[in-house]
Amino acid sequence: MQKEISSNVSRTIQTKLVLPPDTNHMGTIFGGTVLAYIDEIAAIAAMKHSKKAVVTASINTVNFLSSAKVGDILTLEAFVLSVGTTSMKVYVKVECLHLETDERRLTTTSTITMVAIDENGRPTPVPKVRLESEWERSLLSEV
Amino acid sequence: MQKEISSNVSRTIQTKLVLPPDTNHMGTIFGGTVLAYIDEIAAIAAMKHSKKAVVTASINTVNFLSSAKVGDILTLEAFVLSVGTTSMKVYVKVECLHLETDERRLTTTSTITMVAIDENGRPTPVPKVRLESEWERSLLSEV
Amino acid sequence: MQKEISSNVSRTIQTKLVLPPDTNHMGTIFGGTVLAYIDEIAAIAAMKHSKKAVVTASINTVNFLSSAKVGDILTLEAFVLSVGTTSMKVYVKVECLHLETDERRLTTTSTITMVAIDENGRPTPVPKVRLESEWERSLLSEV
Amino acid sequence: MQKEISSNVSRTIQTKLVLPPDTNHMGTIFGGTVLAYIDEIAAIAAMKHSKKAVVTASINTVNFLSSAKVGDILTLEAFVLSVGTTSMKVYVKVECLHLETDERRLTTTSTITMVAIDENGRPTPVPKVRLESEWERSLLSEV
Amino acid sequence: MQKEISSNVSRTIQTKLVLPPDTNHMGTIFGGTVLAYIDEIAAIAAMKHSKKAVVTASINTVNFLSSAKVGDILTLEAFVLSVGTTSMKVYVKVECLHLETDERRLTTTSTITMVAIDENGRPTPVPKVRLESEWERSLLSEV
Amino acid sequence: MQKEISSNVSRTIQTKLVLPPDTNHMGTIFGGTVLAYIDEIAAIAAMKHSKKAVVTASINTVNFLSSAKVGDILTLEAFVLSVGTTSMKVYVKVECLHLETDERRLTTTSTITMVAIDENGRPTPVPKVRLESEWERSLLSEV
Ligand SMILES: CC(C)(COP(=O)(O)OP(=O)(O)OC[C@H]1O[C@@H](n2cnc3c(N)ncnc32)[C@H](O)[C@@H]1OP(=O)(O)O)[C@@H](O)C(=O)NCCC(=O)NCCS
Ligand SMILES: CC(C)(COP(=O)(O)OP(=O)(O)OC[C@H]1O[C@@H](n2cnc3c(N)ncnc32)[C@H](O)[C@@H]1OP(=O)(O)O)[C@@H](O)C(=O)NCCC(=O)NCCS
Ligand SMILES: CC(C)(COP(=O)(O)OP(=O)(O)OC[C@H]1O[C@@H](n2cnc3c(N)ncnc32)[C@H](O)[C@@H]1OP(=O)(O)O)[C@@H](O)C(=O)NCCC(=O)NCCS
Ligand SMILES: CC(C)(COP(=O)(O)OP(=O)(O)OC[C@H]1O[C@@H](n2cnc3c(N)ncnc32)[C@H](O)[C@@H]1OP(=O)(O)O)[C@@H](O)C(=O)NCCC(=O)NCCS
Repeated sequence: MQKEISSNVSRTIQTKLVLPPDTNHMGTIFGGTVLAYIDEIAAIAAMKHSKKAVVTASINTVNFLSSAKVGDILTLEAFVLSVGTTSMKVYVKVECLHLETDERRLTTTSTITMVAIDENGRPTPVPKVRLESEWERSLLSEV
Repeated sequence: MQKEISSNVSRTIQTKLVLPPDTNHMGTIFGGTVLAYIDEIAAIAAMKHSKKAVVTASINTVNFLSSAKVGDILTLEAFVLSVGTTSMKVYVKVECLHLETDERRLTTTSTITMVAIDENGRPTPVPKVRLESEWERSLLSEV
Repeated sequence: MQKEISSNVSRTIQTKLVLPPDTNHMGTIFGGTVLAYIDEIAAIAAMKHSKKAVVTASINTVNFLSSAKVGDILTLEAFVLSVGTTSMKVYVKVECLHLETDERRLTTTSTITMVAIDENGRPTPVPKVRLESEWERSLLSEV
Repeated sequence: MQKEISSNVSRTIQTKLVLPPDTNHMGTIFGGTVLAYIDEIAAIAAMKHSKKAVVTASINTVNFLSSAKVGDILTLEAFVLSVGTTSMKVYVKVECLHLETDERRLTTTSTITMVAIDENGRPTPVPKVRLESEWERSLLSEV
Repeated sequence: MQKEISSNVSRTIQTKLVLPPDTNHMGTIFGGTVLAYIDEIAAIAAMKHSKKAVVTASINTVNFLSSAKVGDILTLEAFVLSVGTTSMKVYVKVECLHLETDERRLTTTSTITMVAIDENGRPTPVPKVRLESEWERSLLSEV
Repeated sequence: MQKEISSNVSRTIQTKLVLPPDTNHMGTIFGGTVLAYIDEIAAIAAMKHSKKAVVTASINTVNFLSSAKVGDILTLEAFVLSVGTTSMKVYVKVECLHLETDERRLTTTSTITMVAIDENGRPTPVPKVRLESEWERSLLSEV
């Protein structure tokens, strides 16, 4: 029987300091920078789960609920939420910490589908995932 | 009466050569790089339409239909498709040209919502858009 | 008889938003950034014409007629203007759009010579070019 | 009485996928890239502890015990280990995960001293730290 | 009487290791990267001479006489060769050292004109230059 | 008898203009940027001495004695100071030139150990070094 991999194996955390080159001339971060961060952390989570190279198949609608400014700190958390045959749905949550006020706001959440590929670039099967909390399971019905 | 701005004013074209730093160790472009390109061209199109600074409010689901490799050429086209009060829906189409075979494939299409902001970072009204072809108007019903 | 390739095949357009990292501490774009953009678009145009890898053999004198500031939009247009045996002269025109005033100014024009190379890095022949307008042909006598 | 801040407040985790641009032509990561990662995560940890801007005062000898290759995943963990008046000693641990073998090796540990600065760039006092485990306290005698 | 500044004051040396991100997929450096290096070193030389911010006015025809590959070392030397009222002609020489063969080849030479600007971005006078060798004076007649 | 290589062979000079992307939001350079510069110049010096690829084995404690701001110019000098069997100790000195005041201050000095590696990534012997001045020899006793 195929072994299930815990969502703790793929769980990945990133902390990013918002710096001038990531921002427009009004000092707020580019949406494209956040999207690239989401893709990067989702790829790492999927690689940790599958021990394979991965490509991005799709990213679900992303709503940017609040902005981030130079000097803010972004925290990203990702883990594999569900698995098909060769594809993995990765849940990504982005929060922004404004240091001076110690205020933490949700920037966005998204799910992104990664496909494991073999040496020839063809989709290849990945193990199943075992979620580890009620919160994680509750996300399954949302996405 | 408020003046309508032609979609030709916002129309923007980008041509990108896929280079090693944009790609993973299998030589295919990162989804995050393409997402950042989509955000960049949508911002330029929205700025040309509104003559204002803009922020990204949301990006619709993006499906990556085909990949791009080092040496391929990506062509992006964007224009403002519809306008709310302060928001603009920008249509973006990404194609990949494989030079040796002269083959051109659709990588993805997406719509991305940009909001015009004033000097204080608050949403500010933008002019209406006038579409210039049947193809453009047909996209309206899809998104 | 050797087939001529239309200048429309190599014609390439780039649109660049001037961002803080491209500029000095007075907020004006580096000459070196514009030169790198000229080389990049000329390489893409030459690759589209020749379906080959290319290297830069030379770039003609570049005069920077006007500067660009953070928030401005640069538009570059390039196409293959004439062809030797293995070399291609690519014409490049750079304009700057200042959004608030809607003013469009010529930043510079230049011609850049690209040489097609084979797998061993040796010059390799390229097809001839067919220019498509009086304006294009008039440039021939200038360069 | 001055409030002590838990080391959990400053604890920061980074996960980095080693990509071609971070590596030399033998595919192993540059020491300088790892040093820049150490400085970045130490700055974030010190900012989270002090709610102030910080500058790097010094970094202790760094021994690179093992290398990292393209496709490996680096995990960095940092937290404020001890505090002077305006300075913070931040402990940083770097591990490398080789995906295919699932092998995890220590790349390096280091301590780096950050100084909090006010709006005029002058050193400014920071709160004390409360360590949260035996392991953390044991590090105090080592550094 | 106005003081002359020795060319030794502006003389600037750069050493660059050619890395994968600076090169195309054949492993040779982009012309645009070399042009950006030339602009950067010329700006530094002009700033050292004038103690002012500078902008690039023009760059003379650049011929790339030989290429550079990943692992090669580029050495750039620049100094202010002559001075107008607000402009400085900077001579730049680029050599490539191929480590394994210990062979050193000329990549290119060029002159680039920099203009000193004041706080309002307007051209501002610069001191005269005193050349320090026969070789330097011989370059004057060439450019 | 094994040939000694003069320290003039490995001597390497770098000049860096401090630009906005290298700095935090207070406009002072990141410690991590300076550390990456030190690693880069030490690698180049060690490669020029050994004609081999090199990896960083360790970097000695670095104290940042003074900071650098946007518009300042950093000068780095490096040379191989002593040699083991496969390792080289490289001395690196970093100075900062503040243009307006013409003031030159020491930013830091450090020694960094580089190990030469062969095609299989294994340590490989390097030639001895011959120091060329009293100053260079005096550094030997310090490090
Ligand atoms: C993703 C990709 C490998 C799928 O290839 P394919 O030939 O369609 O392969 P399959 O039909 O066998 O699908 C493989 C898996 O991908 C999933 N998939 C394919 N397209 C998808 C999409 N747009 N969204 C979500 N999942 C998708 C399939 O459902 C299938 O999942 P399963 O194995 O868990 O059932 C292919 O479309 C591709 O290479 N796209 C480009 C990826 C890329 O390079 N992205 C970066 C930017 S362009
Ligand atoms: C986008 C933003 C300015 C909207 O602010 P707001 O307080 O919700 O303002 P409003 O309610 O007046 O909405 C302004 C417009 O944005 C639209 N909008 C808001 N959220 C949106 C979303 N998620 N998707 C699409 N449109 C959205 C509204 O419909 C409205 O459109 P209209 O004026 O055409 O009717 C705000 O959410 C924001 O700053 N988000 C972060 C943007 C950002 O920095 N993105 C980069 C990465 S974080
Ligand atoms: C360009 C280069 C390939 C030419 O090589 P070469 O041995 O001189 O080859 P050839 O004499 O056969 O010349 C090939 C073509 O290049 C042209 N050419 C060579 N040097 C040139 C120059 N400085 N300016 C314009 N064209 C030039 C020749 O006229 C010839 O054109 P044609 O085939 O259309 O008649 C070679 O000089 C080179 O590799 N230079 C470095 C290119 C590079 O890497 N640039 C990036 C930054 S260093
Ligand atoms: C440096 C490295 C190659 C040494 O490998 P090793 O198996 O210990 O090899 P050896 O024991 O034969 O040592 C080789 C030389 O390195 C020296 N060395 C090893 N570790 C060292 C350290 N931390 N500090 C200084 N010198 C060191 C040894 O003294 C020896 O010098 P010598 O030949 O002149 O006598 C190995 O530790 C390594 O690959 N480290 C990672 C390097 C790297 O990738 N750095 C970038 C960032 S992670």
